[in-house]
Amino acid sequence: MSDSRPIGVFDSGVGGLTVVAALRRRLPQESVLYLGDTARLPYGTKSPETVRRYSQRNVEFLASRGVKGVVIACNTASAVALDSLVEEVPIWGVIAPGAECAANLTHGRVGILATESTITSDAYGRALRSLDKGLEIFSQACPLFVPLIEEGWLEDAVTEAVAQRYLAPLVAAQVDTVVLGCTHYPLLAPLIGRLMGPRVQLVDSAVAVVDRLAEDLERSQKLAGGESDSSADNHYCVTDGGERFRRIAGEFLGDPGISLEWVEVL
Amino acid sequence: MSDSRPIGVFDSGVGGLTVVAALRRRLPQESVLYLGDTARLPYGTKSPETVRRYSQRNVEFLASRGVKGVVIACNTASAVALDSLVEEVPIWGVIAPGAECAANLTHGRVGILATESTITSDAYGRALRSLDKGLEIFSQACPLFVPLIEEGWLEDAVTEAVAQRYLAPLVAAQVDTVVLGCTHYPLLAPLIGRLMGPRVQLVDSAVAVVDRLAEDLERSQKLAGGESDSSADNHYCVTDGGERFRRIAGEFLGDPGISLEWVEVL
Repeated sequence: MSDSRPIGVFDSGVGGLTVVAALRRRLPQESVLYLGDTARLPYGTKSPETVRRYSQRNVEFLASRGVKGVVIACNTASAVALDSLVEEVPIWGVIAPGAECAANLTHGRVGILATESTITSDAYGRALRSLDKGLEIFSQACPLFVPLIEEGWLEDAVTEAVAQRYLAPLVAAQVDTVVLGCTHYPLLAPLIGRLMGPRVQLVDSAVAVVDRLAEDLERSQKLAGGESDSSADNHYCVTDGGERFRRIAGEFLGDPGISLEWVEVL
Repeated sequence: MSDSRPIGVFDSGVGGLTVVAALRRRLPQESVLYLGDTARLPYGTKSPETVRRYSQRNVEFLASRGVKGVVIACNTASAVALDSLVEEVPIWGVIAPGAECAANLTHGRVGILATESTITSDAYGRALRSLDKGLEIFSQACPLFVPLIEEGWLEDAVTEAVAQRYLAPLVAAQVDTVVLGCTHYPLLAPLIGRLMGPRVQLVDSAVAVVDRLAEDLERSQKLAGGESDSSADNHYCVTDGGERFRRIAGEFLGDPGISLEWVEVL
């Protein structure tokens, strides 16, 4: 039994490519259809209603293209929209797998770094407390991380100063585990790791959701056939037709020649 | 002869409120209908095609609400969309008035600070060269200014470090005049003025477009009647229904009780 249909992945922009990179490593035989809603990014500063509306349209678009399931590779959309989506295909969000991974690793004090909307939703806090009521949870919104990452200032004095300010409350709270609760943030993992110190563990929700996806597809016998990536076909759709996505995605995936298509999703 | 219909103003978000503030000072008797396309902001990193599509819909929305004209209070939209808009009412963009003001002030060396899209369009460069072929023009995209302003970090060590980096080429080029080519940037005018030094003049395109608007309305006898602001009625529409706009707009206009409406503009 196998299912060669692609896995749908959506994000507001390039952040979800950390999920694609994790997917390629863990499940190289799977094809991916990616949707970056670049015309309407970012989601992290917008209201839950708006993010829900956009997420529903994104799922419908991917389903119309024949995917076997959808990964919401955006913490904000996972946090506020996952429960309200009308589903035609199975859907995976990043919050629950990220929270489980953190709950398994922590000794009791967990920090959450995420966008304004994800922090306001308290989605990670609720998921973590449902796993372990005794956890101490410290949340920090980091609205400047996404623009700094999109600017490419990854190892930079300005980014370090911003990170120091955002991380100070987590350092003071002596957290032992930090959830990178936005799919952009793994790009700042070296900097965040250095500032938090070697005894603090970082949780990448992109890796966590791909682990969960792999288990679920295997259990339901929906993995693509084949052992290698020779039959895998990766295709990228964006709602803004600019070159910005191709440039950043090329750096991100180490592949300047990605198959890119402009689509309208209203 | 007078015309009491409101003046329509649109921007991707809160930046255009600098135009509203200038309008209130110069033309207090005029009513304003503002549209902030907060569900799709920012425009400054998106492609010209996307910004044109959104701008056309915004103009149609304002026209459907009975405005007597529309001010595009967004440099990016003015730069890439003004020429392609199908107009039902008169439209004013910020680029031409800003460029004229700079051409009148400068001794020959002009710096332009703007979003990535505005800089790429070279709209200010073209407008300035059409006024004076001999001008030396130095352009600098500042993609982090808008997120820093939206974060409220106006007088801040991080913002100063970012500004120093963006302004260094203009300082080195010894420009005598700097155009604040994004309606957010006047909020950083104190910082930019301090870094550029007292001999450099700053051009606020928000003030420039309102001066032009006042002259045009007077000439066409379309000013609102009355001498005071007692009959003026200001109303704000946003495409994202969150509280973020109200909070920032309240600080911005010094008025926490603005009349705010959520609208859908596709």
